[in-house]
Amino acid sequence: MRKFISSIQNPFIKQLIILKEKSRARKKSNQFLIEGKRELSLAIKGGYTIESLLFFTDLFSESEAKAMEQHGIETIEISKEVFQKLAHRDTTEGVIAVVNSKTHTLEDLKLTSKNPLILVAEAPEKPGNIGALLRTADAANVDAVIIANPKSDLYNPNVIRSSVGCVFTTEIAMASSEEAIAYLKKYNFNIYAAILQESEPYHSQDYTLPTAIVVGTEATGLTEAWRTAATKNISIPMQGEIDSMNVSVAAGILIFEAKRQRNFK
Amino acid sequence: MRKFISSIQNPFIKQLIILKEKSRARKKSNQFLIEGKRELSLAIKGGYTIESLLFFTDLFSESEAKAMEQHGIETIEISKEVFQKLAHRDTTEGVIAVVNSKTHTLEDLKLTSKNPLILVAEAPEKPGNIGALLRTADAANVDAVIIANPKSDLYNPNVIRSSVGCVFTTEIAMASSEEAIAYLKKYNFNIYAAILQESEPYHSQDYTLPTAIVVGTEATGLTEAWRTAATKNISIPMQGEIDSMNVSVAAGILIFEAKRQRNFK
Repeated sequence: MRKFISSIQNPFIKQLIILKEKSRARKKSNQFLIEGKRELSLAIKGGYTIESLLFFTDLFSESEAKAMEQHGIETIEISKEVFQKLAHRDTTEGVIAVVNSKTHTLEDLKLTSKNPLILVAEAPEKPGNIGALLRTADAANVDAVIIANPKSDLYNPNVIRSSVGCVFTTEIAMASSEEAIAYLKKYNFNIYAAILQESEPYHSQDYTLPTAIVVGTEATGLTEAWRTAATKNISIPMQGEIDSMNVSVAAGILIFEAKRQRNFK
Repeated sequence: MRKFISSIQNPFIKQLIILKEKSRARKKSNQFLIEGKRELSLAIKGGYTIESLLFFTDLFSESEAKAMEQHGIETIEISKEVFQKLAHRDTTEGVIAVVNSKTHTLEDLKLTSKNPLILVAEAPEKPGNIGALLRTADAANVDAVIIANPKSDLYNPNVIRSSVGCVFTTEIAMASSEEAIAYLKKYNFNIYAAILQESEPYHSQDYTLPTAIVVGTEATGLTEAWRTAATKNISIPMQGEIDSMNVSVAAGILIFEAKRQRNFK
């Protein structure tokens, strides 16, 4: 018999609302919420385990719910009111899942290609920027993304949304900049730090060997640790009035120059 | 004697609030508001004329106001309340200017280089995306940006903010897609339409002749008119789970491939 929850005062629902809103609660419970069918299917593809699936029957069909149950997932029907309270977006698809987090240590990274390409983002601030970086990483099929000195957790609803679910299918590690540098040096990566000062034009470098491309924040750039550790400091020639670029655009330009040099292989 | 306005009920202030909020009011009056020092200085650099400058004395110094008056600009002191009502951002610099719009027809475009590079964006929806496109256009120093089938006006506060003022220093035309295509054909541009279907990899094309790179929306891509008019349809190879990319990231990758081929000249 399937559970039905109609009240937002239900203790389980209250717990999920906290999970949606509080990074600390997500960390403590090692769980988070996913909303939307595409995001859910990418999470399943990415090997995440679904604890339970809540659905609002006007938007999510019985057959879809049944299909989930066949995968051994507990399904719970919820009222419109509960759904609206849990949903993060305006346009939704009637489904919210409680999902178990993964660990994202450097040691968890699986690098299988001979000359891996890694995107490193140091201290990215806005969830929207993290999402855009992960979309670029997905499109380029980079071997991994390292978020160095992270400022927010990966399962922030805005990161999930702006990544369009790419957060689930990309190899991601979170670490301090020092740990990330040690890791990249240990595995003989060439480190290209994107900075403005004393740097080589990005398109003059060879990115066909094991390569890490490192971008910082728009406001303060990269920390000294990366400048010192870099094989080369690189920059995108800026020829306009403003000497800054959206960080996800800059990362896209650099990563796809590396892909071009690798003939998209 | 300098004017001082303390009440948000003042008819002039009421008019400015409408100017801030309503695209139609901006179009009708051919005026709009600019907030912030950098944006203001870029607008002056871009040849915009300032009608009047309103400042809140705690944040904008008397000497700065005097400097503006020496340029023949009327300055008006405003109360904190009025400033907060007119200001669009959280962090501000105590200054709001009433500025005259420019026209943005194709005929207004000044193309001086032998092999111009133009970025065309069809129907970009989000002001933030338009801003990011304009920042990329500025960084690459493209000859012009054409916004085809525009969905919002250029002087939307969110466009100004997200462009960090690049909206004032970039050559921009707004036109229908049909007009833009006719213009580009008239001046013998090679038109590269970024689409997914039946397209060549973007890096296999030569962008050193007069080049227009055309991007559509993330949701629906480019209209048929561009596909038909294109010299070539091009695409960025997508190797991930998701077959879409942030439009400003995609535009950055394409524009900077053109710049690379041109040796950033």
